[in-house]
Amino acid sequence: MASTPETQFETALREAAAATDALLEQLLSESASPRLLSAMRYAALGAGKRLRPFLVIESARLFNVPAASALRVGAALECVHCYSLVHDDLPAMDDDDLRRGKPTAHRKFDEATAILAGDSLLTLAFEILAHGETHADAEVRSALVLELTRASGMNGMAGGQMLDIEAEAGPAQTLDSIIRIQAHKTGALFRFACEAGAILAGADPTPLRHYADDIGLAFQIADDLLDLESSPEALGKATQKDLQRGKATIASLMGRKAAAEKAGSLIASATAALALYGSKADMLREAARFIVSRKK
Amino acid sequence: MASTPETQFETALREAAAATDALLEQLLSESASPRLLSAMRYAALGAGKRLRPFLVIESARLFNVPAASALRVGAALECVHCYSLVHDDLPAMDDDDLRRGKPTAHRKFDEATAILAGDSLLTLAFEILAHGETHADAEVRSALVLELTRASGMNGMAGGQMLDIEAEAGPAQTLDSIIRIQAHKTGALFRFACEAGAILAGADPTPLRHYADDIGLAFQIADDLLDLESSPEALGKATQKDLQRGKATIASLMGRKAAAEKAGSLIASATAALALYGSKADMLREAARFIVSRKK
Repeated sequence: MASTPETQFETALREAAAATDALLEQLLSESASPRLLSAMRYAALGAGKRLRPFLVIESARLFNVPAASALRVGAALECVHCYSLVHDDLPAMDDDDLRRGKPTAHRKFDEATAILAGDSLLTLAFEILAHGETHADAEVRSALVLELTRASGMNGMAGGQMLDIEAEAGPAQTLDSIIRIQAHKTGALFRFACEAGAILAGADPTPLRHYADDIGLAFQIADDLLDLESSPEALGKATQKDLQRGKATIASLMGRKAAAEKAGSLIASATAALALYGSKADMLREAARFIVSRKK
Repeated sequence: MASTPETQFETALREAAAATDALLEQLLSESASPRLLSAMRYAALGAGKRLRPFLVIESARLFNVPAASALRVGAALECVHCYSLVHDDLPAMDDDDLRRGKPTAHRKFDEATAILAGDSLLTLAFEILAHGETHADAEVRSALVLELTRASGMNGMAGGQMLDIEAEAGPAQTLDSIIRIQAHKTGALFRFACEAGAILAGADPTPLRHYADDIGLAFQIADDLLDLESSPEALGKATQKDLQRGKATIASLMGRKAAAEKAGSLIASATAALALYGSKADMLREAARFIVSRKK
């Protein structure tokens, strides 16, 4: 049977996930506290689609960046993603018991351990990027650190999480304000993932930024729809949370049908942004389609 | 009246604190969430001795590093220090209500905000270091990021905090194990502070590492003694906490007199490690004396 772009994508995603896991396994092998290390490994290993590392790897491939460099950047980004999940799941935040079909880190360990594991995963991300093995040129390493801090800090993901918490306690949100929160909370890391390849190569990241912003928003809409339509068993985490909390989402404000159409047009726009890369960007095109068709 | 080394030190410490505050004020001026920014400013501005930035500034002065570079590194280090205080004060950790004479961040705001403010201060630290304004040479910036991640992550401060929490729940600790915990929990940031000057200059950090390890341990012993002997009014935070929890400290295991003597001999050793820098290191010698004589 001839392989289709779709099966090629599935294989590539699986391989990127396996390579990311193997590298994280190696990077998470030593800590002053075995308990802390266990909690970090629990939060970071053996689960997750590794979509962000995949995007780093594929964006780097456009510019023929060595795979080992891209993999390290992907692993660093995954550390930031996993830290954010651990902290967001805490009782003081979203108070979630289930993540990727397993107890959340603070349920498996305790809150103090989960806070420290998140802190340490965040710190590890920058250790990975600053290390000489990530890239021979320190200018590139510094640029990666700088961009990831901006994507994840007070003007990026953490700022977005705070806005999201504030929005829940405040008056009804408009579609524009929810989209702005999403751009910070989840969009910023997608943007870093896609720009990282260009940063590693010293190339112009603008087309990848357009692609990233489109798939980031599409990813959030797909998440909203999965939260409405899927089950905890299929998704490995609680569902219908937004509905239960009376929290407006992009999908609930637009309606499911219009939201699904919007996601589709974002994917078309994301795919168009990749035109100049030709067939080298085929896996990124498939990734865009996967983001709106995934079942979890 | 002629100025003594002691008054010169007090002036220099005050000036370093003012300069650090002014720079942090500027660095903490923009966030996606005004609430998050308020909490970060509350945690990082207008309090604290700024001893770690002072050590960066004085270690950099030994090698004629431009003051602006040293100040940025000091501000980054202070962000890490302040983040660690915010997270350590959380109910799941030390559950403290008072810090520097004010309500702790989670009492002033709430737990979610305090967690995110800590996360964002940690992230900001690496943003400051990776930025071109910190040093023209990206190799130096990357080295600073790498060393600060190692000092603050799973093999440094965060690892030490986890060990400390585990020790409290476990069997009685030996003096050696408490000293090991301290070396991670508080020693690692002191080491970074003192080595930073050498990293900025591309010089050998070994003598400064010896100095740092001695004053780090002396600082902890002084802290133990202050906790036993001072009042919440004088110290701006709860006292006799270790005693109430039945937690062994270096001072309680050695006895107050022997602990004070040990701190004195550490200061002599720290001072001796600075011999090769001559009179340029006078402020670092005074800092060592200050660390064991301070009243808060």
